[in-house]
Amino acid sequence: METVLAGWTDEEQAIAKQAFDSAYGRAIAVLTETLRERVRTIHGAEDVWQLHDFLSIQRHSIEGHFDFRLDGILFVFASLVKDKLLELDELTGLDPEKLAKITAMSRF
Amino acid sequence: METVLAGWTDEEQAIAKQAFDSAYGRAIAVLTETLRERVRTIHGAEDVWQLHDFLSIQRHSIEGHFDFRLDGILFVFASLVKDKLLELDELTGLDPEKLAKITAMSRF
Repeated sequence: METVLAGWTDEEQAIAKQAFDSAYGRAIAVLTETLRERVRTIHGAEDVWQLHDFLSIQRHSIEGHFDFRLDGILFVFASLVKDKLLELDELTGLDPEKLAKITAMSRF
Repeated sequence: METVLAGWTDEEQAIAKQAFDSAYGRAIAVLTETLRERVRTIHGAEDVWQLHDFLSIQRHSIEGHFDFRLDGILFVFASLVKDKLLELDELTGLDPEKLAKITAMSRF
């Protein structure tokens, strides 16, 4: 990812990028597992179209959620922690002020 | 289905409805099997979003294809025969003129 986050050191950006990618991978893994379960129980057209609706919503939600370019990147991390897609200690190395903000927001 | 096809006897409508439903069920069964195979080979976000795109196209295609209210119901049956979702003998009982048109169109 080539985005440069203003006010972040190179090291912080590397940490952020790694944490972001890990959380994204977990979100996709959760979604894939759900798809596998739902596909097993398809019994007709209605189930197929409901699966499609579900996938449309998940795609919209995930692609909206994981926007690394967002000004509100701290808020993104906070919501990933809240959703259990990221552990706070994966952000170790960010400056304490950023970490404190993420921690506080993740408890909302 | 409560649609009344102009120029069709009650018996013909019942035959048409049965054939239509059978073909629809087969199309959904084929799609479901494809979904099961594709879900097994998901290895990341790109595969999930490609599956979503595939499902969007299939839904649009199937819902467009299976429109019992279409004026061109003979053409719909012809295309189902051509796509091997319907056998001509499932339409036995329709008047010979309709059957001849469907047969001819299914060979285009």
